[in-house]
Amino acid sequence: MVKLRAGTAGGAYDVLIGRGLTERVGELLRELYGGGAPGGGIAVVSDANVWALYGARLTAAMESAGLGFFSVVLEPGERAKSLEGLRLVYDAFGRGKLRRDGLALAFGGGVVGDLCGFAAATWNRGVDFVQLPTTLLAQVDSGIGGKTAINVEAGKNLVGAFYQPRLAVMDTGLQDALPAREYRCGMAEVIKYGAIRSEALLGKLAGAASGGGAAERLEPALMAEVVRECCDIKKGIVERDEFDRGERMLLNFGHSFGHAIERAGSYERHNHGEAVAMGMVMAARLGEDKGMTEPGTERALREILASKGLEADCGYGAEELLPHMEMDKKRGGAGLRLVLLRRLGDAFIYDCDFQELREGMAAW
Amino acid sequence: MVKLRAGTAGGAYDVLIGRGLTERVGELLRELYGGGAPGGGIAVVSDANVWALYGARLTAAMESAGLGFFSVVLEPGERAKSLEGLRLVYDAFGRGKLRRDGLALAFGGGVVGDLCGFAAATWNRGVDFVQLPTTLLAQVDSGIGGKTAINVEAGKNLVGAFYQPRLAVMDTGLQDALPAREYRCGMAEVIKYGAIRSEALLGKLAGAASGGGAAERLEPALMAEVVRECCDIKKGIVERDEFDRGERMLLNFGHSFGHAIERAGSYERHNHGEAVAMGMVMAARLGEDKGMTEPGTERALREILASKGLEADCGYGAEELLPHMEMDKKRGGAGLRLVLLRRLGDAFIYDCDFQELREGMAAW
Repeated sequence: MVKLRAGTAGGAYDVLIGRGLTERVGELLRELYGGGAPGGGIAVVSDANVWALYGARLTAAMESAGLGFFSVVLEPGERAKSLEGLRLVYDAFGRGKLRRDGLALAFGGGVVGDLCGFAAATWNRGVDFVQLPTTLLAQVDSGIGGKTAINVEAGKNLVGAFYQPRLAVMDTGLQDALPAREYRCGMAEVIKYGAIRSEALLGKLAGAASGGGAAERLEPALMAEVVRECCDIKKGIVERDEFDRGERMLLNFGHSFGHAIERAGSYERHNHGEAVAMGMVMAARLGEDKGMTEPGTERALREILASKGLEADCGYGAEELLPHMEMDKKRGGAGLRLVLLRRLGDAFIYDCDFQELREGMAAW
Repeated sequence: MVKLRAGTAGGAYDVLIGRGLTERVGELLRELYGGGAPGGGIAVVSDANVWALYGARLTAAMESAGLGFFSVVLEPGERAKSLEGLRLVYDAFGRGKLRRDGLALAFGGGVVGDLCGFAAATWNRGVDFVQLPTTLLAQVDSGIGGKTAINVEAGKNLVGAFYQPRLAVMDTGLQDALPAREYRCGMAEVIKYGAIRSEALLGKLAGAASGGGAAERLEPALMAEVVRECCDIKKGIVERDEFDRGERMLLNFGHSFGHAIERAGSYERHNHGEAVAMGMVMAARLGEDKGMTEPGTERALREILASKGLEADCGYGAEELLPHMEMDKKRGGAGLRLVLLRRLGDAFIYDCDFQELREGMAAW
């Protein structure tokens, strides 16, 4: 087990990384409460897929530590991350009598973490929150950093709160059950961290790939190291910009194009990681075209993505993507704040107006 | 116009008190933004009653300052303070393209302020928020302090956020349109401030009452002074305990009994202020019975309440109220945290277990 310590405006919390931590989660919660337990009860929020796979494991871990809890098991999928899903969680919190000094534990992927975190931020104006993410994507991305959210009619993640967990437990063993597509989706975000901040991380991934090809997963020790490195990069950025006013935007590398790609396919054709992978390639290409990104960066990104089985081309043209980009909530005035690369491992924010973006994409 | 400055964890804001401030609200917002305007748009949240009375006045004030806005006008009443009401507000924010650097202005009573504040706290993970409360109750109570909330199935105010406004404008002239019952409801909270912190405030109210009786309202200069004094007491308490872990609980004087009285009548028989008035009398009586409150306090409270037309007796017995008190969210373990008085102007928190409470109330 590796431990990182994440500082936040409201206090610091531990990020624990290792295989098999789910079995120890009861004991870890006991430590968090100085040997005791949260006075106001424990709610575990999960989804039916995760609960079928790992519910018994978590239950055993809680029971062996003598911790009572109640579970809220949602339908799997993005639709739970909505006002309707939130109502289900609140109603369950009420029935379970979760009090102000209680704890909400998120046990699932990004949807469960975002929804449970927002419910924890707002139930009784804030109860304790612990993250136990079950996907690679959530372990490297949404599981730390404190962005919680739901989707509303007007858009994804438009409603939410900055709300930090008291503890984040990244059990890399839970990834074993991930379908290949979900695993690749997480890999896209791993590659993002390398692209914006650590060329060395990309080197490790490339080295690992040479043996087995896209279908092969990282061996456990390397995966734990990779998750640690991603969490460390994210933690550093969030510590310097918790409320997303500057540097944190770098984490959106590939996301402005990626969101547009997701929207163009009505969120059905490409999942988040697949779209971000394609978006990163587009951002690299735009930067190279404009002479701001080191030549060869796009090609190198394509290679590392291909080695992990990720497609680099979305098949949409500028006329299909631009209308969605113009709706982007990160827009300020007449343009978009894009994240571009100077080179692999070094990203910056570039204010790009729509005219410039249109001209750049028209040339592709 | 009187100005108070309220400090919070996230920065300080002005509380402005005076007659006719609504006409100046555009200019006041201009000042808040250094002569400019919020970059991401302005949403005004109100209800149909308030908008019919004062919508034109607010619109003129905004237009004369050259500020564009869109309005979200809800059905009047507590039902708007719900997940359904929240959805209406979010949808309107989306249609109006309220961005992250936008402003939500609450223009109504406590329901509008609590709902709009929660929407502001969560839209894009937080946009600017300004309070322009239209009732006496909201001007002295929910309009400052940053508690925002909605009601859910499991209870009132069970979902919310601590979210401070950037500015609070208390236009005491807006009270002119208040029905007598709403005015009395606000008076109950005014008396509460006196009871917990300022016997002098009670003296002013009693002196003012001697001339005209319950039906007569405070004359404008005295009302402005009273609102200022209440805001000043609340601001001081909130500054010392923004997140409600100790002293802020004093603001709940009369509320544990009061909430039970409201619930016993299914929120239809007594409004919040009426129930709080009765609850304060019960808390004074309990304290006197137990020898913790100066003798005569209950009688003095009854007199001041009667002078403002507020009933002191709810007609419910212990067996009707206790089940509701046992559900109270401020419960910690086997008892209730009650606010009692040492004497008028001096309150303290008393941990009372249910057995003790039952015995105390059985004797009445």
